[in-house]
Amino acid sequence: TKHYNVAVLAGDGIGPEVMAEAIKVLEVVADKFQFGLTLTPALVGGAALDATGEPLPDETLALCKNSDAILFGSVGGPKWTGLAPDKQPERGSLLPLRKTFDLFCNLRPGQIYPAFADLSPLHPRVSSLGMDVLCVRELTGGIYFGEKGRSEDAAFDTQRYSVAEISRIARVAFAAAQKRSKKVTSIDKANVLQTSILWRETVEQIAKEFPDVALEHMYIDNAAMQLIRSPQQFDVLLCDNLFGDILSDEIAAIAGSLGLLPSASLNGSGFGLYEPAGGSAPDIAGKGIANPIAQILSAALMLRYSFGEEAAAQAIEQAVQHCLEQHIVTRDINPKSTYGTAAVGAAIVATL
Amino acid sequence: TKHYNVAVLAGDGIGPEVMAEAIKVLEVVADKFQFGLTLTPALVGGAALDATGEPLPDETLALCKNSDAILFGSVGGPKWTGLAPDKQPERGSLLPLRKTFDLFCNLRPGQIYPAFADLSPLHPRVSSLGMDVLCVRELTGGIYFGEKGRSEDAAFDTQRYSVAEISRIARVAFAAAQKRSKKVTSIDKANVLQTSILWRETVEQIAKEFPDVALEHMYIDNAAMQLIRSPQQFDVLLCDNLFGDILSDEIAAIAGSLGLLPSASLNGSGFGLYEPAGGSAPDIAGKGIANPIAQILSAALMLRYSFGEEAAAQAIEQAVQHCLEQHIVTRDINPKSTYGTAAVGAAIVATL
Ligand SMILES: CC(C)[C@H](C(=O)O)[C@@H](O)C(=O)O
Ligand SMILES: CC(C)[C@H](C(=O)O)[C@@H](O)C(=O)O
Repeated sequence: TKHYNVAVLAGDGIGPEVMAEAIKVLEVVADKFQFGLTLTPALVGGAALDATGEPLPDETLALCKNSDAILFGSVGGPKWTGLAPDKQPERGSLLPLRKTFDLFCNLRPGQIYPAFADLSPLHPRVSSLGMDVLCVRELTGGIYFGEKGRSEDAAFDTQRYSVAEISRIARVAFAAAQKRSKKVTSIDKANVLQTSILWRETVEQIAKEFPDVALEHMYIDNAAMQLIRSPQQFDVLLCDNLFGDILSDEIAAIAGSLGLLPSASLNGSGFGLYEPAGGSAPDIAGKGIANPIAQILSAALMLRYSFGEEAAAQAIEQAVQHCLEQHIVTRDINPKSTYGTAAVGAAIVATL
Repeated sequence: TKHYNVAVLAGDGIGPEVMAEAIKVLEVVADKFQFGLTLTPALVGGAALDATGEPLPDETLALCKNSDAILFGSVGGPKWTGLAPDKQPERGSLLPLRKTFDLFCNLRPGQIYPAFADLSPLHPRVSSLGMDVLCVRELTGGIYFGEKGRSEDAAFDTQRYSVAEISRIARVAFAAAQKRSKKVTSIDKANVLQTSILWRETVEQIAKEFPDVALEHMYIDNAAMQLIRSPQQFDVLLCDNLFGDILSDEIAAIAGSLGLLPSASLNGSGFGLYEPAGGSAPDIAGKGIANPIAQILSAALMLRYSFGEEAAAQAIEQAVQHCLEQHIVTRDINPKSTYGTAAVGAAIVATL
């Protein structure tokens, strides 16, 4: 039988409590769909800083290298703000993991679920039209990783993109669109940036490999506006690292349900890091009220993208959907709800 | 008596028709508040491209140099897309004007007017709390104007900021906040960018000159999210060139009323370019239905910031407010309205 090794990096804040539910769910589906799983925990973020002085200790990195995927919780909190950038829990763990494993492709779906349209901060006349967007973000290039420097009275950052970097992320976006509504909106600032002109040209070339997918280009400023005015116009958004960072959070805000949004960060050989889109939410940590669904759906994405266990992934997604329909949700989704983290996790397990 | 020379660059699309109303308003207040005005039109954007092959002809630039301010309409349209970036109507006129006149400071107010909260695409539970934001955007530095280049298979752009550039725009933001709700939210990506670390440090220094103003820092991705979730939390947003481009358009979308939003781009000696936040709207051009208010309010900002004619500026703003209260508005504000561009302009003139 197949066997998968998962590095489990729960992190800080609500990370450990939502991860506990995801682990229960994974164990149930492994049993049901007959594959083996070894889930090995390791320290990351603030918890790792406190224990070792590093947000991503060598030991954790070594575990990740010996695993088939990383299931990530969330990191950071007030205790660790004010540290130098390299030491910060979020940046100090996520950026080196992305670079080490060449996780060039970040997938962030964002939906307004019709039954939960009222969660969206958009007006009902907009949110009732729905939203079903997949943000495909380049994750290992651009201004994040270009040459940067600092003198006494000035600083600089460089955004650099190659045709190869743009091509590989564009192919992911077009292939994803083929399985969805067959439309890619490529985001750039080609009226100002040379990298954006190259981006646009390269995306045009790749589009020829996918004649059944419609392509449009949109400036980042206009996209920031259009997402609010009529998010239902979008299917797949293709973004560079910086623009994807901004728009994927804007999409999450529009969905209104951070606690439901998973994400996947993939490389070219099936390895990936899977994490909820929301943060460590230190204000509600330890209270047993955090929503475990984004973490559980992140585990489903891991089964799909890294292990090819599509049936197991779908089973989890259907169980989640079922609980949502039964209104078995935490209070971020329904303020009147009395279900906590463990109760929602247990309901999903029971459905499975 | 005082006398001001204004370069009037109406441009394309709805530019000329809304500019006609702003000119009527300016002539009335000049008379009422007893100052002289010479309003000299010149070609810009697509109109200039058609006539001269350049989006910003030498003659137009010469006129601007001999004027005390530039009143700008809007440029661009489907006819001129696909041109090289330097020739594009918007970029090819605005960027050189900003650089030539050192217009480092872009002011873009964005409000949700209580009486028009329903214009906002936000949910009433959010929009009813209101929004009154001033976006202060650095306009002559950053990745827009840094070194950029292109090879066969790669391209780069450089973002560069100096302490001096950051300081001067920060001072504008703090001084503006002093006259408003005394809070500055400085936007950066200090967990990734060296320029953002310098930005944050420099803003902290300048904040000491304004002890009565509260300062907070926010990452650009979080700001893109927070603006949608609770825009009422913001007073003055201080942004670099790129982040300001994105957030000011996001704010405009949230306000929901592009046709009401003016903007000012200023240098250190009182010279400025004033333009509506919306575009040239080619789809409605020539129909007499475009909203002239953003252009008229841009003229008011010119009187305030470039000419120091505060009373005249306020008179215009009050007349606009009065027409809004009387529901004398174009159909972008009220779809059932039968008022056109000229009728709204005439009502504002009559109120004055
Ligand atoms: C923590 C930070 C460096 C990171 C990013 O900007 O990529 C985060 O915002 C994200 O989107 O995962
Ligand atoms: C036309 C373009 C270069 C410009 C910018 O990006 O600054 C526009 O979007 C703006 O905000 O005035």
